[in-house]
Amino acid sequence: MSKDRLYLFDTTLRDGQQTQGVQFSTAEKVQIARALDALGIDYIEGGWPGANPTDSAFFDAAPKTNARMTAFGMTKRSGRSAENDDVLAAVLNAGTGTVCLVGKSHDYHVTKALGISLDENLDNLAASFAHIVAQGREAIFDAEHFFDGYKANPDYALQCLHAARDAGCRWIVLCDTNGGTLPDEIGRITRAVIDSGIPGSHLGIHTHNDTGNAVAGSLAAVDAGARHVQGTLNGLGERCGNANLVSLIPTLLLKPQYADTLDTGISPESLRDLTRISRQLDDILNRVPVKTAPYVGASAFAHKAGLHASAILKDPATYEHVDPSVVGNERIIPMSNQAGQSNLRKRLGEAGLEVEPGTPALGAILNQIKEREAQGYSYDTAQASFELLARRELGLLPEFFEVKRYRVTIERRKNKRNQMVTLSEAVVVVKIGGEKKLSVSESMDASGQDRGPVNALANALAKDLGPYQKFIDDIKLVDFKVRITQGGTEAVTRVIIDSEDSSGRRWSTVGVSPNIVDASFEALLDAVTWKLVREGAKAP
Amino acid sequence: MSKDRLYLFDTTLRDGQQTQGVQFSTAEKVQIARALDALGIDYIEGGWPGANPTDSAFFDAAPKTNARMTAFGMTKRSGRSAENDDVLAAVLNAGTGTVCLVGKSHDYHVTKALGISLDENLDNLAASFAHIVAQGREAIFDAEHFFDGYKANPDYALQCLHAARDAGCRWIVLCDTNGGTLPDEIGRITRAVIDSGIPGSHLGIHTHNDTGNAVAGSLAAVDAGARHVQGTLNGLGERCGNANLVSLIPTLLLKPQYADTLDTGISPESLRDLTRISRQLDDILNRVPVKTAPYVGASAFAHKAGLHASAILKDPATYEHVDPSVVGNERIIPMSNQAGQSNLRKRLGEAGLEVEPGTPALGAILNQIKEREAQGYSYDTAQASFELLARRELGLLPEFFEVKRYRVTIERRKNKRNQMVTLSEAVVVVKIGGEKKLSVSESMDASGQDRGPVNALANALAKDLGPYQKFIDDIKLVDFKVRITQGGTEAVTRVIIDSEDSSGRRWSTVGVSPNIVDASFEALLDAVTWKLVREGAKAP
Repeated sequence: MSKDRLYLFDTTLRDGQQTQGVQFSTAEKVQIARALDALGIDYIEGGWPGANPTDSAFFDAAPKTNARMTAFGMTKRSGRSAENDDVLAAVLNAGTGTVCLVGKSHDYHVTKALGISLDENLDNLAASFAHIVAQGREAIFDAEHFFDGYKANPDYALQCLHAARDAGCRWIVLCDTNGGTLPDEIGRITRAVIDSGIPGSHLGIHTHNDTGNAVAGSLAAVDAGARHVQGTLNGLGERCGNANLVSLIPTLLLKPQYADTLDTGISPESLRDLTRISRQLDDILNRVPVKTAPYVGASAFAHKAGLHASAILKDPATYEHVDPSVVGNERIIPMSNQAGQSNLRKRLGEAGLEVEPGTPALGAILNQIKEREAQGYSYDTAQASFELLARRELGLLPEFFEVKRYRVTIERRKNKRNQMVTLSEAVVVVKIGGEKKLSVSESMDASGQDRGPVNALANALAKDLGPYQKFIDDIKLVDFKVRITQGGTEAVTRVIIDSEDSSGRRWSTVGVSPNIVDASFEALLDAVTWKLVREGAKAP
Repeated sequence: MSKDRLYLFDTTLRDGQQTQGVQFSTAEKVQIARALDALGIDYIEGGWPGANPTDSAFFDAAPKTNARMTAFGMTKRSGRSAENDDVLAAVLNAGTGTVCLVGKSHDYHVTKALGISLDENLDNLAASFAHIVAQGREAIFDAEHFFDGYKANPDYALQCLHAARDAGCRWIVLCDTNGGTLPDEIGRITRAVIDSGIPGSHLGIHTHNDTGNAVAGSLAAVDAGARHVQGTLNGLGERCGNANLVSLIPTLLLKPQYADTLDTGISPESLRDLTRISRQLDDILNRVPVKTAPYVGASAFAHKAGLHASAILKDPATYEHVDPSVVGNERIIPMSNQAGQSNLRKRLGEAGLEVEPGTPALGAILNQIKEREAQGYSYDTAQASFELLARRELGLLPEFFEVKRYRVTIERRKNKRNQMVTLSEAVVVVKIGGEKKLSVSESMDASGQDRGPVNALANALAKDLGPYQKFIDDIKLVDFKVRITQGGTEAVTRVIIDSEDSSGRRWSTVGVSPNIVDASFEALLDAVTWKLVREGAKAP
């Protein structure tokens, strides 16, 4: 049986840019467009040319893609022809093969927001799309507020869709602009649209996550017959975000009810890049990836409960709905205080440490973990520190160097221009073999801003480790989390540090102390030591 | 028409505790239980007594609630009677009126994971629930892997449910344990269960978010007739989390298709606490609240797009599916401050500052708050720092003293007995009137343990403030919270400090800086200054 083609339309660069706190540069837009194209997305909506400078610049710089590059705009305004509407002209001037225009389909918005008659709006829709089609472009109609419009005045809402369709629109996209429509309503109303004479092969869906149902709403429209889905990477978008394509794509490719009947054009090979692409977007936005994200989150295949963890060891399918590797993700069995020796051996195996059952060190490692977790350590996320702890017990950790002492000074005082400034300075003294090395660092970033004592310490520690320097030069501190594990003045601080190297490898380490600087230093030390282990460095 | 009762079952304290990186203390569990009870949740699942010490301790300390406190456990094991199963006995010994047991309903898991016959499992289910009911407890069956089990062997899966029901179970809960079942399947299978003779008034749903559809799956089961929904606050839970009650509750109360036919027992007044409760949980977990969270996120009603923002000013319903105030959230529109000023005056009044409407300082205060919140400050909890900011703008803050400079040194080195020890020392220089005062302090507690640089700074700052000393001698640092407000190397640290004096008065102050010590110092300084204001101290 031949499969129906389901088209994916990405609007990360347009609707996704409406996310609070998000502002892409042109270079970032180009980078994201390339990633979307490599993934195999059908349409990339690049922005609204003419509405802001970055969007216009993007279309000038847009990379050559297999995906159809799409410019966004709005239908022509009343009182002028489509040919003479300068806003529309700017959109067409971007020169894309596909043009997507938002327009009204809710009677209330026509009369209240536009202040024109219902018929006038129908004329504007027809004229706008006829103009685009006459220019040889593919036309898409984003029918704004369609579901609310349909509930208020179904006849008029449908008339709007048909006006656009009759003018030659390739796709009529039903938009739940306010995000308040629930999936069952979306399914029911989509079926009503198809019954009105617009075939599903020309229908699209555009949802928002204001009730937490954007993905389900999209699936409901596909179930009803729509064959075009709009969404964004990582669910970026105004308010609560748009439908998350990173959640939708694996469901469409992996769940039999979709995989057996629909073809999205995305290959299994591309699907394995999904986790990487999702995290790349977070990198560009300087955000910490959401651990609990469906399919691609760092916790999406993490098994903490004792019962679950032991069942997973027998058969992964017991607590996993799909194999994590098909989306480029990994299974994680964290060490929590219920974990037994078999979990431990599994985790050690993943770190390349094969240990025979019954080895006495296994019991010692479990005891150490238990003891340290009671002090405030946590090895759920700090896998690299876990590995070092295990290696120490197993006698598999070289003594690369010894820290003799360190000193950090933080000073706040007036500078020459009589401004209060803060300065941090760190001195670290290590012994490598017989040789003593003193390193000192400040913690200024490129802009001259003090980044604090932990940065100063990290810089000093990594400044001169002699024979190891070549292994650690590419370590970058990418995240830093602090948690106070006991309240009050007896507070104990837990610091978790995420590091990354030039190969893209990422690892997490932990330190605990009543002194936050000391806790940080412990985590930094583990980060460096783990890298040396991974690089196969030898003790002096 | 009388409405059907829909029961809400919260498992934040049990399944929510399976979240990677989450480990509640007993005190935190009590605090969360109180919040759930105030919200009007029907069932609070407190944990698995006997499985870990915190859960057992919680049931000993559990607060008196209107909600039905529920202990979790598993059905009796084979080869012993329900009366002689020690795991089950520990669950019953918690003394809760309701007991929820997880048991198998998927044939594969019975034979593979338990290694017993299908009939034996049915006997275990019947015996376990009969035993609970005989003890006068309300019984709930969490049918693990039910949807996968139904797809594999519908007859057997249904037999398991009926065995529990016939033994007197109040609720049969259909669990999508792996989170892979899509909403339309959940709806279809729930209807099949009802058709098999278990009425919806005895059926519950328990979903996970592995495909991003946990909320939609719960709604699909309710649509099919289920009248008990399990979930967690903020969607905590193993892997991608459980169904998020914070998203579900407003949908059930505000959307006509549910509000007109179902009664959840949650009042409109309680619903207005939802945003606060959601953020309180994040505070307890020291997490940054998710801005894009449906209904309660800080961005959930933020309107960035120019077109949207101007339409919102004409009529909020144009781009909002519900009114933000009904869930205790706020609309955010750039350049709108009408609502802002009256809220602000209300808050100032709470701090004893009566300000006339239209006073120009009000606009200046709002701008300051906005600017500082963009830098990472938060005045939600740090009331004392908010008051100081407002007093400064209103010209109501005396200049008690000036900090000229401070210096903190943290040193780790070997002591005389060749042990590595950490020492912190702080010097603070202030000017009071014309007089300069230098103070120095270490940070040792009574046991000789270093408590870190922030303690050293607090001690030095409060050591000698001359004429003010009598006002500040009784300040105690009682809590210290650190949060990184931006990820990566550009991390900015927010410190919130809670202080207390001998009268039992408590106040919170905030500091923000890339340098954690500097952020702490700012919060300490506010703590001292606020106390001087409260004591009516005069500038020198």
